[in-house]
Amino acid sequence: MSLVQPRTLPGALELLPREQIAFQRLLDTIRATYERFGFLPIETPVMELTEVLLTKEGGETERQVYFAQSTGDREAGREPELALRFDLTVPLARYVAQYEHQLAFPFRRYQIQRVYRGERAQRGRFREFYQCDIDIVGKDELPVRFDAELPAVIYSLFTELGFGGFRIQINNRKLLRGVLAALGIAEGEPQTLVLREVDKLDKRGPEYLRDTLRERFSLGDDIIGRLLAFVGTRSTSYAHARGLLADLERDLAHPLLAQGAAELREVLDRLVDFGVPDSHVCLNFAIARGLDYYTGTVYETILTDHPEIGSVCSGGRYDDLASHYTKSRLPGVGLSIGATRLFWQLRELGLYKDAESTVQVLVALMDESLLGPALQLATRLRAAGIAVEAQLEAAKLAKQLKYADRAGIRFVALLGSDELAKGVVSVKDMQRGTQFEVAADELAATLEVEIAQARAMAGVPRA
Amino acid sequence: MSLVQPRTLPGALELLPREQIAFQRLLDTIRATYERFGFLPIETPVMELTEVLLTKEGGETERQVYFAQSTGDREAGREPELALRFDLTVPLARYVAQYEHQLAFPFRRYQIQRVYRGERAQRGRFREFYQCDIDIVGKDELPVRFDAELPAVIYSLFTELGFGGFRIQINNRKLLRGVLAALGIAEGEPQTLVLREVDKLDKRGPEYLRDTLRERFSLGDDIIGRLLAFVGTRSTSYAHARGLLADLERDLAHPLLAQGAAELREVLDRLVDFGVPDSHVCLNFAIARGLDYYTGTVYETILTDHPEIGSVCSGGRYDDLASHYTKSRLPGVGLSIGATRLFWQLRELGLYKDAESTVQVLVALMDESLLGPALQLATRLRAAGIAVEAQLEAAKLAKQLKYADRAGIRFVALLGSDELAKGVVSVKDMQRGTQFEVAADELAATLEVEIAQARAMAGVPRA
Repeated sequence: MSLVQPRTLPGALELLPREQIAFQRLLDTIRATYERFGFLPIETPVMELTEVLLTKEGGETERQVYFAQSTGDREAGREPELALRFDLTVPLARYVAQYEHQLAFPFRRYQIQRVYRGERAQRGRFREFYQCDIDIVGKDELPVRFDAELPAVIYSLFTELGFGGFRIQINNRKLLRGVLAALGIAEGEPQTLVLREVDKLDKRGPEYLRDTLRERFSLGDDIIGRLLAFVGTRSTSYAHARGLLADLERDLAHPLLAQGAAELREVLDRLVDFGVPDSHVCLNFAIARGLDYYTGTVYETILTDHPEIGSVCSGGRYDDLASHYTKSRLPGVGLSIGATRLFWQLRELGLYKDAESTVQVLVALMDESLLGPALQLATRLRAAGIAVEAQLEAAKLAKQLKYADRAGIRFVALLGSDELAKGVVSVKDMQRGTQFEVAADELAATLEVEIAQARAMAGVPRA
Repeated sequence: MSLVQPRTLPGALELLPREQIAFQRLLDTIRATYERFGFLPIETPVMELTEVLLTKEGGETERQVYFAQSTGDREAGREPELALRFDLTVPLARYVAQYEHQLAFPFRRYQIQRVYRGERAQRGRFREFYQCDIDIVGKDELPVRFDAELPAVIYSLFTELGFGGFRIQINNRKLLRGVLAALGIAEGEPQTLVLREVDKLDKRGPEYLRDTLRERFSLGDDIIGRLLAFVGTRSTSYAHARGLLADLERDLAHPLLAQGAAELREVLDRLVDFGVPDSHVCLNFAIARGLDYYTGTVYETILTDHPEIGSVCSGGRYDDLASHYTKSRLPGVGLSIGATRLFWQLRELGLYKDAESTVQVLVALMDESLLGPALQLATRLRAAGIAVEAQLEAAKLAKQLKYADRAGIRFVALLGSDELAKGVVSVKDMQRGTQFEVAADELAATLEVEIAQARAMAGVPRA
């Protein structure tokens, strides 16, 4: 029989177990934080009916869709009725519309699942990747104060993740549009095109933006100057942010600007209530996001030690989530973390070391005759809630210690015939390089204390 | 704009949030148990290359495969290069062969992901469902004692899940084949066909089996009688099981029978070491499983209060996992739980009540002017690791209590102006129907104790 070369599709991130453990801890932390803020879990099928999924005008997104079809339907020459979701927002819209009368609004949901895009194969581009979304969806209306809850979640999350400094950048599209209107840039298409360029400021720099505005939009130097000064503004504290908004309203007058400024002030006030410090929030007037989808508050989050990664968590306020599926008006606000890309990038930067194993204790086996007592020991430890790998084949101690070291297992429990006779177990702490002996009956309790201490030191939450 | 009816593909189980919480707890318990026994996580892409996935002779399985194709590839008229996995075993084989030199053997892996089958739409048949697999894969060889570790995991898991009584039924295909051979049924095709019928004994009953053996296989009444007596045998204890094996070896002689009996004895001995009690294990000589894939030990698990569900957890020993991808011999033993089907069936039986919410405390809001203090309270509770939903819009208390009740949130924290003035918080325990007042500073600690107690009572593991 000829062998098939084992390989995955390009653009899928498949991990070795120790990497998977690290990635799983990232997802677990995200989930625990989302739950701590009262978001409820949902999951939706990977495949949606094409008619439901592809309601919007196709364009770039539709070209990247994976269609799916069973063997039978293919053979019958049918068009594919199924497609893989390309984000979690369309499935959320479908879900909320479908179960509208069974859900309580405002509906806070989190969803941590994979999405699929037929991207061109390229390093760092993924065709399958995890998105970790939170959204709050209101019925008929959703007061702007809700827009402050999402950055509060993100502050708590990135503090706990410990990737170093980060900053949640906030803007408001009404404010942006008001400013553009006040500067004489017409609503609709012209504003949309200008905003698309403004959104690139942090990547391309002010010179690029100045040249583009001059050449493509024929704006006068005065307008360009004022626009550049505006979109280049960043707040450094809540007080500074409020001052910037007041200055803006004094210098330029437009109802949309005033509304956007009022919304931003409300968000800032509530962020103070949520205990989010100045240091981690700033107004960044260059952030526009996805153009027409968002209608008010928009967010991006950068890791200040690694700004080259770009935004690690983005989202904003939208007016109506599910207009394709229901006549009900469902305004909302949401945020998404691309966990696969984030993990991959942090790993590329060397920030993700191999994780400590999920296995907490290796019960070694030095002599075949001791298999029974070793398994009984493993069973007692497991009954105490400790994650134990039992060696089922006798091997030299050095080999078993080397295995534990490579696998990232912290404790090795040794039960030789001497120990068995004395009613004790020897424990090697691979992390500290120490060894101690403990009565067999007390081993579980002793290790529980050690593990709880290590967890407390690492700041791992309890539940 | 005409509305699209929001709906999912038939055969996908989509849950409301409280159901999703219950399902998530099932998956979490499975995962925690797998980890407690030293199994390491892996995840593989939903899509595999068709060339890699569909190495086996197609038949029924291949007909149920979903193929996937991006827009571009469809338009170019190409054949699909991708297909959705239909189980987790083929991806495991591909994974182990692909990373063979980076993995440590025996490789214990768990994998909890969704799989896809183009089943005919039918109640209780799923096109997308979770499988929760554990496998131990050896390099070159894997001693039979490993076959005892999987039932030990299952014993621990189903004890913790608390679905009532269950029994892990064990058999050995070598023993089965040895008995058939000793009874004069030829190896190869005849044995395979007879085993396929034997496997149906528990579903169809002995009369069906007797008639089929007589009519289709032209076996003599004496042989049929002996075969029926054999496959109808169930052990009631480890001692009884050993006695049955001894009887069998005395009555019939065949090298395969002897080998199978020796393997079963080894499994039974190790199960005793693993602390699995007699009451939850039995030999069931009618269990044959998936015919040619399994080569030694086979398992099925039934819920004794709900035998009509059939096996909730099945698996066995195989000789060579990845012969399509590597020349290395990789014997292993594995088990799979179909979590979606299990959840659905238990829910149908009324055994899954709506879960308590992931939200532990609702911070109510009775007056708009108290939004700030309410958010600050929520923030303090969250900092203590408590999952809190903060009401951001003032509403009548009765309405908020009703919401908490419907949502399955146990505690409601009330911070009215009286409470604020006194520096206390009123807490309503929705479960006990009691209310108490506690100093605001002590609220987090008080609730932590309550939650920890509730968790201990429910037998939920800590981590």
